[in-house]
Amino acid sequence: MNTLEADEEAKVVVFDSAVEGFFLNHSDFNAKIEDLTAIPQGPTGLEAWPDVLVRLTRAPFVSIALIRGPATGNGSEITLACDMSFASKEKALFSQWEVGVGMVAGGGPMARLPRVMGRGRALEVLLGSDDITADLAQAYGYVHRCFPDAELDGFVESLASRIASFDKSAIANTKRLTNTTLPEDVEIAEGWDACIKSIGRPVPQKNFKALFAEGFHKPGDVENRLGYYLGRLNR
Amino acid sequence: MNTLEADEEAKVVVFDSAVEGFFLNHSDFNAKIEDLTAIPQGPTGLEAWPDVLVRLTRAPFVSIALIRGPATGNGSEITLACDMSFASKEKALFSQWEVGVGMVAGGGPMARLPRVMGRGRALEVLLGSDDITADLAQAYGYVHRCFPDAELDGFVESLASRIASFDKSAIANTKRLTNTTLPEDVEIAEGWDACIKSIGRPVPQKNFKALFAEGFHKPGDVENRLGYYLGRLNR
Amino acid sequence: MNTLEADEEAKVVVFDSAVEGFFLNHSDFNAKIEDLTAIPQGPTGLEAWPDVLVRLTRAPFVSIALIRGPATGNGSEITLACDMSFASKEKALFSQWEVGVGMVAGGGPMARLPRVMGRGRALEVLLGSDDITADLAQAYGYVHRCFPDAELDGFVESLASRIASFDKSAIANTKRLTNTTLPEDVEIAEGWDACIKSIGRPVPQKNFKALFAEGFHKPGDVENRLGYYLGRLNR
Repeated sequence: MNTLEADEEAKVVVFDSAVEGFFLNHSDFNAKIEDLTAIPQGPTGLEAWPDVLVRLTRAPFVSIALIRGPATGNGSEITLACDMSFASKEKALFSQWEVGVGMVAGGGPMARLPRVMGRGRALEVLLGSDDITADLAQAYGYVHRCFPDAELDGFVESLASRIASFDKSAIANTKRLTNTTLPEDVEIAEGWDACIKSIGRPVPQKNFKALFAEGFHKPGDVENRLGYYLGRLNR
Repeated sequence: MNTLEADEEAKVVVFDSAVEGFFLNHSDFNAKIEDLTAIPQGPTGLEAWPDVLVRLTRAPFVSIALIRGPATGNGSEITLACDMSFASKEKALFSQWEVGVGMVAGGGPMARLPRVMGRGRALEVLLGSDDITADLAQAYGYVHRCFPDAELDGFVESLASRIASFDKSAIANTKRLTNTTLPEDVEIAEGWDACIKSIGRPVPQKNFKALFAEGFHKPGDVENRLGYYLGRLNR
Repeated sequence: MNTLEADEEAKVVVFDSAVEGFFLNHSDFNAKIEDLTAIPQGPTGLEAWPDVLVRLTRAPFVSIALIRGPATGNGSEITLACDMSFASKEKALFSQWEVGVGMVAGGGPMARLPRVMGRGRALEVLLGSDDITADLAQAYGYVHRCFPDAELDGFVESLASRIASFDKSAIANTKRLTNTTLPEDVEIAEGWDACIKSIGRPVPQKNFKALFAEGFHKPGDVENRLGYYLGRLNR
């Protein structure tokens, strides 16, 4: 983010995945929580992850998420922090899975989802904690649009190149003026705090163990169909 | 609402109708207005009906409306106050019919509709005062989704059971954090005051009489196609 | 606007175009900028164009845009300031083209678009600066609904007559209560200032020359497919 912010020429940044079959999924729950909480606050005064996401929304360049695979937790949160997002109709999945395991999400979806799809549909996504298909994501406004997989790269390349041919001052000022509709930083901060407090509670700790026993954190069915496995956890 | 709020175990509440052919329709306009206005204020400081609706939106449990029939006036308002709503494609109808009779709606739709579908489409619903089909309601975000009637109960049962299997603290904290996008109570209060002031004016009083003469308040065509009859009132 | 505001009987105003093939397009860029900036502020304290648009949103009557042709720049801005908008499926096009030429839009779309379609899709419209079809405009909530061209006039006439048969006090009070979701005037004011500052910069001045050389401001391909020509400007 520091590098991008320092680049006065940057107009458009496209985020896609180098990992076949995934956009970006959840955090590493084998890591020590102290390794996460020890990262210094960013320049916004927010903790590292929400700091990066908030700076992305305020940056004078344009960010586009190109999604070809599950966007779970962090992957959904960076999608929502990007200015635009386009998805593969066949391969993209969206999920804020945190409540399903007993946690609160930390990267701002309680603040951002209601502002794109209304509070009710946002609660369906957040509290249902299920995998959302690209078609439903498009209908709800979770993602801008989905395209047949073969057409996705061409569309994003064309839109990114088009915007990059325009004047940076016009881009930056126009984006700045839409930013009045962003949530306040304190709202993002409070979401992060609720997330960190939730992780250590007994319910998620028990659920993590059960998920790890079934194959969580490894390529395979639990990661591919996390929503299904969350629904079985406490039955 | 007192009972629900006091129930520390409650995670999900589903509202459906015990009356075949209706979800919930408008108030009883044969009742004395004093019987309504004499109900004490609720704990929020709002009058009884908006008090219940506002508390529903802030409650630590999840509320789901299951709609199989017309949701007119109060029925639409409780739908909008629920966290989620799902409707029968064939049987649901939505209506804020009040302007059509010369009133202002009292249970918050001027505050809630713009926040789910934008101010313009909200004005179309409110000022058009017509019956909105389930398909259009879904397209506008008035309801989350509509399903073929035979699939509706199964979907809602599955979603409600799923959420009820999750941790209450995670549910309550996640919901609390989306509540920053709720309207302020004073906005709901002002809507209620405008409603009460409007009821006694000559135009709605004249229109009520005309509607009663045609069969208003009884099972039949006026209640089933209220939008149609409102459009004929002053022609 | 003065005339309309003074008309105590006016309930519904429909804006359509007297020019076959267009709704309303952009400003006259052959005019002197001083002729624009010399127009006195309106009663809201805003400059003339944003003043008219803001008063339209606050007026006690209902405004409906009927769109049969491109709505570019000013045409899009008046559409967004109207309470409702309906479009011809075959003939309507929507465009905030300003960033494509190196300008910032001046009539409030940075404030209004995010409130109807979310900030992200609003940025796609604003920064992509491309022609948006009626179908996509409907899916994004840019316009309320589109209809086959042959059905458009009938639908709008029916809705406008229906609302005009209702009580003005009920209409005006209901509209007033949805206006809490309007952007603040200062947000519109800042957009206008950014627009005026942007026009004189070298990039748009160079681009205007290039567009005029290709046929800008005359009936023909540049005006009909402005999005296409903007994409070629700096390649």
